[in-house]
Amino acid sequence: MAGMNAGTPTRMAAEIAEQPEAVARTLAALRPQRAELRRLAEGVRLVSFIARGSSDNAATYGRYLCEVHAGRAASLAAPSVATHYHADVDLRGVLAVALSQSGETAEIVETLQWAAKHGARTVAVTNDQASTLAAAADLALVTRAGPELAVPATKTYSCQLAALSELAAALGRDDPAFDAASERVPAAIEALLACAPAAAALATEIAGAASLVVSGRGFAYSHADLEHGPIAVLGADIPALLVAPGTGPILPGMTALARTVAARGSRAYGIGGDAAFKAACGATLPGPDLPESLAPLALIVPGQLLVEALARDLGLDPDHPRGLKKVTQTSGASSQEA
Amino acid sequence: MAGMNAGTPTRMAAEIAEQPEAVARTLAALRPQRAELRRLAEGVRLVSFIARGSSDNAATYGRYLCEVHAGRAASLAAPSVATHYHADVDLRGVLAVALSQSGETAEIVETLQWAAKHGARTVAVTNDQASTLAAAADLALVTRAGPELAVPATKTYSCQLAALSELAAALGRDDPAFDAASERVPAAIEALLACAPAAAALATEIAGAASLVVSGRGFAYSHADLEHGPIAVLGADIPALLVAPGTGPILPGMTALARTVAARGSRAYGIGGDAAFKAACGATLPGPDLPESLAPLALIVPGQLLVEALARDLGLDPDHPRGLKKVTQTSGASSQEA
Repeated sequence: MAGMNAGTPTRMAAEIAEQPEAVARTLAALRPQRAELRRLAEGVRLVSFIARGSSDNAATYGRYLCEVHAGRAASLAAPSVATHYHADVDLRGVLAVALSQSGETAEIVETLQWAAKHGARTVAVTNDQASTLAAAADLALVTRAGPELAVPATKTYSCQLAALSELAAALGRDDPAFDAASERVPAAIEALLACAPAAAALATEIAGAASLVVSGRGFAYSHADLEHGPIAVLGADIPALLVAPGTGPILPGMTALARTVAARGSRAYGIGGDAAFKAACGATLPGPDLPESLAPLALIVPGQLLVEALARDLGLDPDHPRGLKKVTQTSGASSQEA
Repeated sequence: MAGMNAGTPTRMAAEIAEQPEAVARTLAALRPQRAELRRLAEGVRLVSFIARGSSDNAATYGRYLCEVHAGRAASLAAPSVATHYHADVDLRGVLAVALSQSGETAEIVETLQWAAKHGARTVAVTNDQASTLAAAADLALVTRAGPELAVPATKTYSCQLAALSELAAALGRDDPAFDAASERVPAAIEALLACAPAAAALATEIAGAASLVVSGRGFAYSHADLEHGPIAVLGADIPALLVAPGTGPILPGMTALARTVAARGSRAYGIGGDAAFKAACGATLPGPDLPESLAPLALIVPGQLLVEALARDLGLDPDHPRGLKKVTQTSGASSQEA
């Protein structure tokens, strides 16, 4: 152990702990917008998410939820089609949903404006009501994370997921069971904050590894993609961190993957899952008691605690990862060249 | 240097060298199908690609080309939405394009069948006319790569790109300049085969690195995503391999990225690009003299030569990467549980 010691609370740790309130505020604030969202999405045949970085991970959740829960075709947009190629694409019947925590990432704003110009209806998901992105969209879903000072997105990320869960609820049929589970999300996050000591212990175990491969499926990075090639890198010095919901159709595959990882002489660490999944992993952190469709809002919490502790173990500052800034502007975006 | 010596030609090397003929055969065979493709795509509002692994990289090219060249909205499908969640999504007005070299990857076949059941029109891109995938689709674009015996996809991959270039040509407006450039692709690939000695020299330089980060943009892995986080891993022992077309709107950003990589104390190696890009990189391999829309069909060749040589330098067998099989079946797919 080196660097920041356990007695110095980081901003990242504080912001992780604020999530039960932040997510509860966000869900309560956005629920009244369902009717307006539903009207905007009338006749829409495709929901297209515009995002980068951690917002792109949130968008992956949004695309699955739109298809699986709301039955609406969904996709992840390629911003350079707009910002670099200025392509002339017919986007009538598309609901373009742009995600940016700051609402000021130039290429995201530019891509949303391009989509609107080509016929799409537009939604912004941002943590700043006064941002350029919020002003540019037909409708803004403003998350209520409050100011986030650490560079890694924690509460702004879980609040993005909360906003996307409300979007999908508005686009699908009324589902009282989904809404009831949504009410339980803040408490589920609160319960997982208690695993901080276990996350710190797991971080110490992982700290000696050369690399770490992270995999999930469905609402996360697909283990199917891992098995199509990258799995070859796993070995004694490169363990795998597998994230699984407690129920649902992907769980058997995740458990099988944990066994495959062990059979390759690597170690599988797990977050979430059921008893069989936990038994197949070398060590696990708990997941939430939520249906798979809402589990990602809380399943991220043990991962955040693990990463925060791991950074400290490695003598790094969790609040300021090497070479990253809070708002990323991509080099070469035409909006910056202008 | 260890393992297989330079005097033992690998299957992978032989198959790389077969690409000028394989791509020429494929383009010639598929061009007559344009009219049929055009009829199938009448009224289509979204082209959705279904793929995994190396086929998923080909699909990324297809989605860019459909949007930028043909002006058709395009997306990459999430197969588990079909295979695991059995989602009820309205896919009328969608052209589903499934890619599988073998045509036998169960989850790809199952996802195509799910798309058809939900209203999509369907196209198969496969190297086997007699495959399950070809039989399941409304129309099959059969690549003419011939049998591929090495596990890494080389000629089947470039032939997939050739098929997708024909798909985009059929979906867009007539473009004689595109067609003329398409005729020059086999010769451009042939010319790049001559850089094998340079690729081998570069491989020897890279062989000592702990890892290698690969980045491009537009029709490849986005450097915008790299700059949103993963760039932090670059360092003295982790160089970057940057792939750039010789012209087009993303080239200035790729050159800027090469300079950023160098400024971080890492080394940038390049494939393709123009004089400014080459000057910003520590060492480069040449790219093709083709417009950006068709460059990927040839730009992959120096990368293939580099990887083949690098595997031999590291004492590995290029034909049989550790833990990979030619046809990947994903664990937990419902079609295998049945």
